[in-house]
Amino acid sequence: MAVITGSSLRRKIMDRDKILLTPGPLTTTLRTKLAMLRDWGSWDADFNAVTAGLRKSLLDIVHGHETHVVVPLQGSGTFSVEAAVAAVVPHDGHVLVLDNGAYCKRAAKAATLMGRRCTLSSFDEAAQVSPATLDASLTADPGITHVILIHCETGAGVLNPLQDISDVCATHGKGLIVDAMSSFAALEIDARKLRFDALVAASGKCLEGVPGMGFVFIRKAILAGCEGRSQSLAMDLYEQYAYMEKTTQWRFTPPTHVVVALAEAVAQFEEEGGQPARLARYTGNYRTLVDGMAAIGFKPFLDPAIQAPIIVTFHAPGDPKYDFKTFYTAARARGFILYPGKLTQIETFRVGCIGAIGANEMAQAVQAVALALKDMGIASGAPAL
Amino acid sequence: MAVITGSSLRRKIMDRDKILLTPGPLTTTLRTKLAMLRDWGSWDADFNAVTAGLRKSLLDIVHGHETHVVVPLQGSGTFSVEAAVAAVVPHDGHVLVLDNGAYCKRAAKAATLMGRRCTLSSFDEAAQVSPATLDASLTADPGITHVILIHCETGAGVLNPLQDISDVCATHGKGLIVDAMSSFAALEIDARKLRFDALVAASGKCLEGVPGMGFVFIRKAILAGCEGRSQSLAMDLYEQYAYMEKTTQWRFTPPTHVVVALAEAVAQFEEEGGQPARLARYTGNYRTLVDGMAAIGFKPFLDPAIQAPIIVTFHAPGDPKYDFKTFYTAARARGFILYPGKLTQIETFRVGCIGAIGANEMAQAVQAVALALKDMGIASGAPAL
Repeated sequence: MAVITGSSLRRKIMDRDKILLTPGPLTTTLRTKLAMLRDWGSWDADFNAVTAGLRKSLLDIVHGHETHVVVPLQGSGTFSVEAAVAAVVPHDGHVLVLDNGAYCKRAAKAATLMGRRCTLSSFDEAAQVSPATLDASLTADPGITHVILIHCETGAGVLNPLQDISDVCATHGKGLIVDAMSSFAALEIDARKLRFDALVAASGKCLEGVPGMGFVFIRKAILAGCEGRSQSLAMDLYEQYAYMEKTTQWRFTPPTHVVVALAEAVAQFEEEGGQPARLARYTGNYRTLVDGMAAIGFKPFLDPAIQAPIIVTFHAPGDPKYDFKTFYTAARARGFILYPGKLTQIETFRVGCIGAIGANEMAQAVQAVALALKDMGIASGAPAL
Repeated sequence: MAVITGSSLRRKIMDRDKILLTPGPLTTTLRTKLAMLRDWGSWDADFNAVTAGLRKSLLDIVHGHETHVVVPLQGSGTFSVEAAVAAVVPHDGHVLVLDNGAYCKRAAKAATLMGRRCTLSSFDEAAQVSPATLDASLTADPGITHVILIHCETGAGVLNPLQDISDVCATHGKGLIVDAMSSFAALEIDARKLRFDALVAASGKCLEGVPGMGFVFIRKAILAGCEGRSQSLAMDLYEQYAYMEKTTQWRFTPPTHVVVALAEAVAQFEEEGGQPARLARYTGNYRTLVDGMAAIGFKPFLDPAIQAPIIVTFHAPGDPKYDFKTFYTAARARGFILYPGKLTQIETFRVGCIGAIGANEMAQAVQAVALALKDMGIASGAPAL
């Protein structure tokens, strides 16, 4: 364990924490992390009260108490996406995935592996998915039973039109599964206006908890039908729900410290002013970032009209001296962790606007990027023409 | 989030941490928890070095570098058990589960749900599983391809005969999957002497980390055959392994704080003297507990010859004034969290001997139990005849 003991532990203690400009794990507050300095019995009433309070708060955020239940699940967000598909889509169902990026393809792969029929409806990764195309697809193939949408596709950073997609699904009487991993708690999601069978998010994203659990909102009207559908023991959301309702406990050992950190993060979210306040802060972060980067020549990949203020994809500088690894290392040495691009055709990198950070950190990040370019002897972040 | 804010937060801060005498989550050291006061980028080299160091240390513990790889997985230990079965057993395989308790039945359920043919070989929950019976079963049904054994079945606390079962499986050329959740790092497991296809444990058990991840040792000789076998995207151990080897990263967002806490816990495990030292401490805990409880009339459920020094099942007191909930609450008020029994036929409760605790805490626990009895007006812990 050389990396965290002896002299390298001392070195790390002297380091300031780096700011994570990634789509998660994020920078969290010290208060959130301090909540992990206690051990909790997973069978004990005190811990179960934390779980119950957390579930109530999550339903508050989407105004979903009338229409939905929320079921937490161990693991990363991908575990919850897979579990949601397994719970909601019957074995003989047919899923249409609205695909404009890597996370769409991941959801489609999960559905296919578990044996659900799955069709991709492909869109450009620089564009939103299209409600009109979905309407045509559902008309053309009435056998489709469910639609999967990624709300904010962090592959490029596109904000997809959740309300319009939900309306098309409702009109056709199709189930909608929303991966809201990167948007939940930052962008408005209102279960009184939207119709969705399942909506998935996770602890380590815009709620600013630490990673290690996800959660799935399931529409009450379809809940009973989910029983017995999962082919997984560990990821059976219906059984997790039923056991939790009956006993107040998680069905299998919960990540207690992660759960308590998330509860503490949600308390701070509520104190900050909830989703509108968080969106305002992230929008400010986004503006500071994009304006600052523009001033040193960088160009965002997306049309601002479809850009979510969550994570921004920038074109790589056109200068032949640029390479991502050197750039990353130079920015990191100044205390900022950037994120690689995930586009297949052109070279890009990504910068997150989320986490327990504000305009100061974003301005400092831009300065770190400027100094990284200087290190590399690159005059401008402008992409190749 | 009322339970952790405002006046109840203040109340909790004034409380001393309760000692968890459960099979996990356990009481961990402050040093382990302090490791979580930092945010790590899951893409960053520093974090990936922690993962690599942890994997090396885990292989050290079982002397498995020559024969096995180790693959960490997000979620509770049950997730890793399910993932191990999915990776190791072909779709047309036939699993025999040696069943002497609740965790055996859980493994069988996971295998059945994922579509593997599964047969239970049932033993009394107060007895070890029998190598001779296994030998006969494998002779009688040559179609069985794999055997599942729970090393320490914490339903009652039985230590099963791992070496003998491994030898029988080797003789018959059958794959062996070991759930070593509650024994790993406390009881000897030596891959140079044992032949197993997969062996599963988790962070929040005898390594004394916090809960939130498991890990699976997979025999190198069968690794290639695991590719493409999982019907789960999130829990595909082969893909997790291949991705980690290629990139040094986890395939999907890791529970970064849990991983780093485990690495810190493993460093302390090594400093303490590894598995022999941990076993010695837990054996001391066990003796202090059992001797102290005997002095106030309590009787363990198991024959000491088959009892692991991990978790002890006690008969409930025969006094008609006893009920578990009152007893639990009274012990809890003195700072100790006990654990309910998991046997179906007779009333019991369980007390764990594991976690970052020693003889002091065990003696204090016995004293708390004595005072709990006094509160309830019960003269002795002696069971009904």
